[in-house]
Amino acid sequence: MGNCCERAGNFFGPQKNTNVRVSLPAVCFVWQIAMIVLFGVFIRYDEESDAHWVVYKKDHNVTDIENDFYFRYPSFQDVHVMIFVGFGFLMTFLKRYSFGGVGFNFLIAAFGLQWALLMQGWFHSLDHTTGKIYIGVESLINADFCCAGSLIAYGALLGKVSPVQLMVVTLFGVTLFAVEEYIILDLLHCRDAGGSMVIHAFGGYYGLAISWVLYRPNLNQSKRLNGSVYHSDMFAMIGTLFLWMFWPSFNSAITDHGDGQHRAAINTYIALASSVLTTVAISSMSQKGGKLDMVHIQNATLAGGVAMGTAAEFMITPYGSLIVGFCCGIISTFGYLFITPFLEKYLKLQDTCGVHNLHAVPGMLGGFIGAIVAAAADESVYSKEGLINVFDFEGDFANRSPGTQGGFQAAGTCVSIAFGLVGGAIVGFILKFPIWGDPADDNCFDDEVYWEVPEDEETIPPVLEYNNHMIHKHQEISESNFSVEQS
Amino acid sequence: MGNCCERAGNFFGPQKNTNVRVSLPAVCFVWQIAMIVLFGVFIRYDEESDAHWVVYKKDHNVTDIENDFYFRYPSFQDVHVMIFVGFGFLMTFLKRYSFGGVGFNFLIAAFGLQWALLMQGWFHSLDHTTGKIYIGVESLINADFCCAGSLIAYGALLGKVSPVQLMVVTLFGVTLFAVEEYIILDLLHCRDAGGSMVIHAFGGYYGLAISWVLYRPNLNQSKRLNGSVYHSDMFAMIGTLFLWMFWPSFNSAITDHGDGQHRAAINTYIALASSVLTTVAISSMSQKGGKLDMVHIQNATLAGGVAMGTAAEFMITPYGSLIVGFCCGIISTFGYLFITPFLEKYLKLQDTCGVHNLHAVPGMLGGFIGAIVAAAADESVYSKEGLINVFDFEGDFANRSPGTQGGFQAAGTCVSIAFGLVGGAIVGFILKFPIWGDPADDNCFDDEVYWEVPEDEETIPPVLEYNNHMIHKHQEISESNFSVEQS
Amino acid sequence: MGNCCERAGNFFGPQKNTNVRVSLPAVCFVWQIAMIVLFGVFIRYDEESDAHWVVYKKDHNVTDIENDFYFRYPSFQDVHVMIFVGFGFLMTFLKRYSFGGVGFNFLIAAFGLQWALLMQGWFHSLDHTTGKIYIGVESLINADFCCAGSLIAYGALLGKVSPVQLMVVTLFGVTLFAVEEYIILDLLHCRDAGGSMVIHAFGGYYGLAISWVLYRPNLNQSKRLNGSVYHSDMFAMIGTLFLWMFWPSFNSAITDHGDGQHRAAINTYIALASSVLTTVAISSMSQKGGKLDMVHIQNATLAGGVAMGTAAEFMITPYGSLIVGFCCGIISTFGYLFITPFLEKYLKLQDTCGVHNLHAVPGMLGGFIGAIVAAAADESVYSKEGLINVFDFEGDFANRSPGTQGGFQAAGTCVSIAFGLVGGAIVGFILKFPIWGDPADDNCFDDEVYWEVPEDEETIPPVLEYNNHMIHKHQEISESNFSVEQS
Repeated sequence: MGNCCERAGNFFGPQKNTNVRVSLPAVCFVWQIAMIVLFGVFIRYDEESDAHWVVYKKDHNVTDIENDFYFRYPSFQDVHVMIFVGFGFLMTFLKRYSFGGVGFNFLIAAFGLQWALLMQGWFHSLDHTTGKIYIGVESLINADFCCAGSLIAYGALLGKVSPVQLMVVTLFGVTLFAVEEYIILDLLHCRDAGGSMVIHAFGGYYGLAISWVLYRPNLNQSKRLNGSVYHSDMFAMIGTLFLWMFWPSFNSAITDHGDGQHRAAINTYIALASSVLTTVAISSMSQKGGKLDMVHIQNATLAGGVAMGTAAEFMITPYGSLIVGFCCGIISTFGYLFITPFLEKYLKLQDTCGVHNLHAVPGMLGGFIGAIVAAAADESVYSKEGLINVFDFEGDFANRSPGTQGGFQAAGTCVSIAFGLVGGAIVGFILKFPIWGDPADDNCFDDEVYWEVPEDEETIPPVLEYNNHMIHKHQEISESNFSVEQS
Repeated sequence: MGNCCERAGNFFGPQKNTNVRVSLPAVCFVWQIAMIVLFGVFIRYDEESDAHWVVYKKDHNVTDIENDFYFRYPSFQDVHVMIFVGFGFLMTFLKRYSFGGVGFNFLIAAFGLQWALLMQGWFHSLDHTTGKIYIGVESLINADFCCAGSLIAYGALLGKVSPVQLMVVTLFGVTLFAVEEYIILDLLHCRDAGGSMVIHAFGGYYGLAISWVLYRPNLNQSKRLNGSVYHSDMFAMIGTLFLWMFWPSFNSAITDHGDGQHRAAINTYIALASSVLTTVAISSMSQKGGKLDMVHIQNATLAGGVAMGTAAEFMITPYGSLIVGFCCGIISTFGYLFITPFLEKYLKLQDTCGVHNLHAVPGMLGGFIGAIVAAAADESVYSKEGLINVFDFEGDFANRSPGTQGGFQAAGTCVSIAFGLVGGAIVGFILKFPIWGDPADDNCFDDEVYWEVPEDEETIPPVLEYNNHMIHKHQEISESNFSVEQS
Repeated sequence: MGNCCERAGNFFGPQKNTNVRVSLPAVCFVWQIAMIVLFGVFIRYDEESDAHWVVYKKDHNVTDIENDFYFRYPSFQDVHVMIFVGFGFLMTFLKRYSFGGVGFNFLIAAFGLQWALLMQGWFHSLDHTTGKIYIGVESLINADFCCAGSLIAYGALLGKVSPVQLMVVTLFGVTLFAVEEYIILDLLHCRDAGGSMVIHAFGGYYGLAISWVLYRPNLNQSKRLNGSVYHSDMFAMIGTLFLWMFWPSFNSAITDHGDGQHRAAINTYIALASSVLTTVAISSMSQKGGKLDMVHIQNATLAGGVAMGTAAEFMITPYGSLIVGFCCGIISTFGYLFITPFLEKYLKLQDTCGVHNLHAVPGMLGGFIGAIVAAAADESVYSKEGLINVFDFEGDFANRSPGTQGGFQAAGTCVSIAFGLVGGAIVGFILKFPIWGDPADDNCFDDEVYWEVPEDEETIPPVLEYNNHMIHKHQEISESNFSVEQS
């Protein structure tokens, strides 16, 4: 009873203000208008999406089918599905935060991709003659990728932050992403087509650092909602499967035309298959009676895809891919079993979706795997031209050896982690200001806070009994109110 | 109590006959057999899907990859997903009409696309020498598009009509579509690749006109079922997201090879992102506490895609696309907040899914936006050849100026609306005959009427308690029957 | 009471041991490690996915876009979705076996595709000079196809076997598949691009034979769980629709470049549309009041796609496709109404998903339809080169006539059925050993056996009432335990 009164005190005492009726519309409008202005100043169609293509075609003696659109659009659509359905539905596993999982994912990805087109444009494809950014289908893929970093971070924060905070996470996340990506891809000249480093390691550590700063010691007051029900686990499986199936497209979407895309898809497909078996094995071993845990199946099966993000386009060989998937399925499942509870207990780090095990660690491993595979590259395997082609040993980098490239790849991984941790810590402190409308500790993981939630699932009464039903219902409610007042 | 008796009177009194055991199979069989006969007489493979392709290739000096299949098949599959999963699941939001939402959508789309292949073939691609229609992948896309008009109309009628009525709606809908499309695209020589006019404005007003004629003054007798539950909203989000993600494919599926498809995809992608932010903003502003409403997120976020249906292939510029999405997200959300209730109260127009706000108005706006963008086109932006290429200023239309084209585009929009309103009113009157098996006013939005519905969700009892449980259940039922009799 | 005691006796008496904590991890690890070793020995990239492509391109005077990746990758991704989401979600219809439906499907497909790459490689594409198997995107499609056979078999076994048994089913299923496919495609030189014979007839009869051997006379002890609930039917519709929408890609994924893929997609699209209407018609006719049955809509609508697996790439004509879909929709729905109950009652054959009606019979019919269409082929329809191209009348088979080809196609169908029946019977007997951890008769169709299942759906209590609620709950549980002990 004492405990009950304490909680009642919490309830009626000074509550956190979760009203975002001013802040959320304000942020959306101001940022969307800023996007319109900046797009107006900077963004134009590139030569393959501009009406001048008909002239360009003649001048360059190419045909319509050689437009980059036909090389990349199918992969783009798969990536798009991963971002919105894959990440979105993967986060619907909580029993009463499915609206927030898929809905806020939708909101921040839609904002993030606009800001990403600008940020990535400024860093990677600003034409200094005209001062414009020229976009095509590859820009759209990169924008989706850039969002992925922030969506991964959302996984660590799921249920504990307000939509306004998520917009801030995304604004800074996309900005940091563009900078670290510029350093890693352009300055260090790393290869990272599927983003083990720039997307997963960065996004994972970014989210973890924010979550660490926003640690809630009394989060167990929301414990009753921090879990799944049968059907919310099924919705999450939609997310898992679309991520799993389309990961070959993710890792091959922006690799080189021809063998680059072909090989990246094959390697990722193989690694993912291997992850599934070892995830099932460890999950079964860890439970009394050998029962499988949906959390592992929903997440650790994807670790092979994350870890192949860098190496997929290299000649890692099919059995090499199998080994990567094999190990990462094990490591990721162990993470869910032991590391997440450890982090929460000893490092004060609450990681709702376990992004540490699915993105941070496999991403970091993927970066180092890429470094090793790059360092081991030689002309007998790649051919002379193939080596130049795969690693872009051209221009300033014409004399770089595979060994040196491996070193830079490893350095790039460290850069991405550092950006994630430092950037996340700073953003975390910004989010501690009491102005963002985040929920109280006993109010987390609850859609009621930010959504109009419809009535619960219940047996729909037949028409004749409906009035009676309503009467009974009101009686019940009065009685329960009464008993609450009495208690 | 008086009310209760009145309802009981309704219930036991002269009921509408919703038995479709004769009419539904009859319609399906007769129409399907008619399709077989007509396909036998008229439909053949075109040169790119015929076994003579191997000869054609040599004669025309093209390679396999230049077969239109490789330009359009990925987009076709995306459109196909939008029609069956997108529209289908978007209509599962009602708590007890999910079977009807996705199932009848499936039925009428599968019929509609066959009839569309014929109708569009007769109007657009009948070879007058041979009297045959030659089909390829573009025909399949157009057939899916043609169905979309009728599926949009279904949105306004959801839960209030029988499957037989829906088959009639589709038969006439596809027919009217083919005629208005012929007038708009061929006679007026409008451009409307994503169908703002021919699909959305037409389909929306077609459905609204039917719904207006079929007005049910006592529909509030089914009010208890006219709403969502938590998980039905999640199923609807599957529909929303697949529509949202694949809309760039919808608007680019039949545009010109090369820059046409490329630009249309980019513009639609950008406009949709912008719609999401303004929808969230208005939805949050409109509710006490700033809570978001799933109805808005499920629908108004798509308005940008609808409104870009005509202009997506033009040089509307990326920031122009953002502005279109920005405005349409606002307008559509306002529609759900104010216009739908207004229409229901004052114009006697019941619009279950709010197609007025998602299709009719954004489609109409999209038509006029297209007109404006077309009128503003000039050679400095498009290049001389680009202008001819984009607007097909060839043959009879070689001398048409962009300004004139804009005028015709606007005229086309009016034609589509007129077809929708007049056609819908006529079809509505046909559907008023008391022979179609539609549900009574207190029986709407209920899958029980047309589907074998399985038992409700409930705690599945463990094996040992199952017998006891069944005994208790029967007792409960007897008791509740008893209490009903007493009351 | 007697019945109750008997069941209690079952319950506390010698129970089947369903603990797979040793066997499942052991099988996963051993087989995955075997895969790594065998991939290391045998599997390499083919010339289109190897880094030497840049050299190959020059030598063969081709461009990047002519890499097979761009011909087949979009279709591959559609097939991939069918295997994991299509088959997976189609099997979620049971009220309490959704985890097992989608989860075990995931597990066995991920294992099966690895084993398939090896088995199909050894039989079809082993380079005898180097002793290596060279893989590309077409190999991935074929591996997915090969899994499909075992997944179909799983449909007949759903809810009645352990995951370890399913791994055995898949190991043998893939092996048998590769052998029968070698006989049918290579030795008999049949055409079967969409696998009516090699996938559907084989997989269907394979599963039925296993299920027949594993007949459980007391399966009605699990009757309470052998059915759907409202939302599990909705999840199953996700599977149905993705199978239905992407079946054109399934049947066209490995057909000839150009017209072959184009025509196969068109024919399948048309046949499937026709199936939907006749399924609805028969389903409605069969029920009192004309109500539709979700079982039919979820399954029989797909029969047209199965039956077009062989003939889709031939010149079957669009109306021929309609007729195939028309008949197979009827036959399949009749199967669910009459043949499945008949098989269970008189042939002791329990077929959970009704694969007999969806795969076995339509697959067999598809084989014979293919035979007839092949036998009817002539040069006036195909052109001389077209005929050679479609049927590969080259090399050893240059002098084969269409009539002879038809005979071989029919023979191939018989081979596939024989392999399914004999192989399934043998595998069934292997699975009867009491070591596999399969569930007891009163424990079937229950996720509790192999999964950690979260708490049930329930009204989530508001924070204030949570403690009270927990107290009440414990009281209820004590009371119910008490009453059980008393009874």
